[in-house]
Amino acid sequence: MKTLFSVLLAGACALSAPAKLVTQTVEYKQGDATLEGYLAYDDAFSGPRPGVLVVHQWMGLTDYEQNRAVMLANLGYVAFCADIYGKGVRPQSTKEAGMEATKYKTDRALLRLRVNAGLDELKKNERVDTHRVAAIGYCFGGTTVIELARSGAALNGVVSFHGGLDSPTPADGKNIKCSVLVCHGADDPFEKPEDLAAFEAEMRAANVDWRLIKYGGAVHSFTQPMADGSMAGAKYNARADKRSWQDMKSFLTEIFK
Amino acid sequence: MKTLFSVLLAGACALSAPAKLVTQTVEYKQGDATLEGYLAYDDAFSGPRPGVLVVHQWMGLTDYEQNRAVMLANLGYVAFCADIYGKGVRPQSTKEAGMEATKYKTDRALLRLRVNAGLDELKKNERVDTHRVAAIGYCFGGTTVIELARSGAALNGVVSFHGGLDSPTPADGKNIKCSVLVCHGADDPFEKPEDLAAFEAEMRAANVDWRLIKYGGAVHSFTQPMADGSMAGAKYNARADKRSWQDMKSFLTEIFK
Repeated sequence: MKTLFSVLLAGACALSAPAKLVTQTVEYKQGDATLEGYLAYDDAFSGPRPGVLVVHQWMGLTDYEQNRAVMLANLGYVAFCADIYGKGVRPQSTKEAGMEATKYKTDRALLRLRVNAGLDELKKNERVDTHRVAAIGYCFGGTTVIELARSGAALNGVVSFHGGLDSPTPADGKNIKCSVLVCHGADDPFEKPEDLAAFEAEMRAANVDWRLIKYGGAVHSFTQPMADGSMAGAKYNARADKRSWQDMKSFLTEIFK
Repeated sequence: MKTLFSVLLAGACALSAPAKLVTQTVEYKQGDATLEGYLAYDDAFSGPRPGVLVVHQWMGLTDYEQNRAVMLANLGYVAFCADIYGKGVRPQSTKEAGMEATKYKTDRALLRLRVNAGLDELKKNERVDTHRVAAIGYCFGGTTVIELARSGAALNGVVSFHGGLDSPTPADGKNIKCSVLVCHGADDPFEKPEDLAAFEAEMRAANVDWRLIKYGGAVHSFTQPMADGSMAGAKYNARADKRSWQDMKSFLTEIFK
C-alpha cells in the first residue's frame, strides 16, 4: 500500500469517535497487470473492523466510487475501491467505457480474477477483520460483485446497485457462499425481464441467501447524481438512492453481526 | 374505547423511557356492524405519536396480530388491530377462514369500508398524531392495506406482508396517496407471476411511490411462526420474518419523518 498518501480530517462522522479519515491510492497486481485502487478508513478507530470492497461503474474508478468509499469509512468500515480495468485505464467516453466493460463481461474468468485481486488486497490490510468482508458495486460493478460471489470467494455478502444480473454460466450459482442483496430500479430498461427471471432461477436452484428490492419509479443509474437523463433509461433518483443506501446499511449490519 | 381494559408492565422496551404497556379491546362500528379491535400503546410516553393500523390474516384477529401491535407499541407507536370480520367472527378452521376472506375479497367496496372504519378508530385516539399514520397487514391483511390505499385513504404508508396483490379495479391505483412497501416471499406459490406483474403495472401507471422486496427462499406466511409447513406453500421463515420487520421499521422511520 503506497503512493499518494493523504490524511483528511472529516468534518462529519457517523460515530462518536473523533474522525480521522485516511484515503490512499493503492497499486496492486493481478497477474502481470498493474491495478490502481483507492483505500479509505477512519484512523480514529483501532483494531480490526469489517471491510467493504467497492466496484466501479463502466467508466472505471472515478470520484463517484471514491466518495462511496469515504461514506463507508465514515460508517466505520475499511473501504477499498477495486480497479478492474487497470492503472491508467480510465475511459473518457461512453464508447470507450462500453468497450472496456464488454471486454470483461464477455470474459467472466478474467473479470473474476480482477475482482478477486481487489478482494485479496482489501483483506491484506491489517485493519480488516478478514472474517467480516463484503463487496458492493454499481452498474458494471454490480454485475462484478455478483460474479465475485459466483467465483466462490470467501466473503459475507455482496450488494449490487443497478447491476446486470445475467450469467453465461448459471450453474455457478452453486458456488455462492455469501448473502446477496440486489437493489434494482423497477423501471430499469437495461435489465430484461428474462434476465431478472434467470437470475432468480439461478439463486433459487442454488439455494442462495438472496434478496431483491425493486424501487418503484427508478431506472438505471438511480444512485448516480451525474446521470441527468441525457442518456435514455439512466437517471438519478434521490429517493431510491437514499433508500438503497439505507437497505445496504441494514444488510451490512446484519451480515457483520 | 371501552371493555376489557388491561395494563401490563412490559419487561423490555426499545426506548429509554420506562415502559408502561397498555392493551385494550375496543368495540367500534362500521355501519350497523359491530367490530372488535385491539389497541396497544406505551403509556410512558406523553403527547401525540405516530399510529399504526394492523390488519389480520384470513383467520381473523388473533393473538398473532395482537403481538405485532405490542411490538409496535414497544417501538413507541400507537398500534390498533382492526377487525374486518366483525365481533365474534373468529374462524375456527381454514374452511371457515376461506369463506370469510372470500366474502371481502369479492366485495372490495365492503372491505374498504371495514378497513377505513379501523383507520378512523385509530385516528380518533387522542394519543395519535393524525398526520403520521400507517397501516400494515399480513396475508389477507396485506391485501386489505393495499385496498385501503386504493380507497384514497389519508395516511403516510402501507406495508403488505405476503399479501395478495391482485385488484379487480387496477385503475384505482390512481387514488393512492401514500407510500407502498410490499414484503413478498420470492417462492410464494399463492401469488401468481401475472398478479405480481399486474400490481407493478398498476403502481407504475399511477406513479405511486412503491417498493417491492422479494425474500429469497420464503414462501407464503413467512412471518407466521404457526405456519409449520403442514399447509403446502405456507411456512414460517425466521430470516425473512426478521428482515421484513427491519424493512418495515426503516419504512416507518422514513415516512414518519
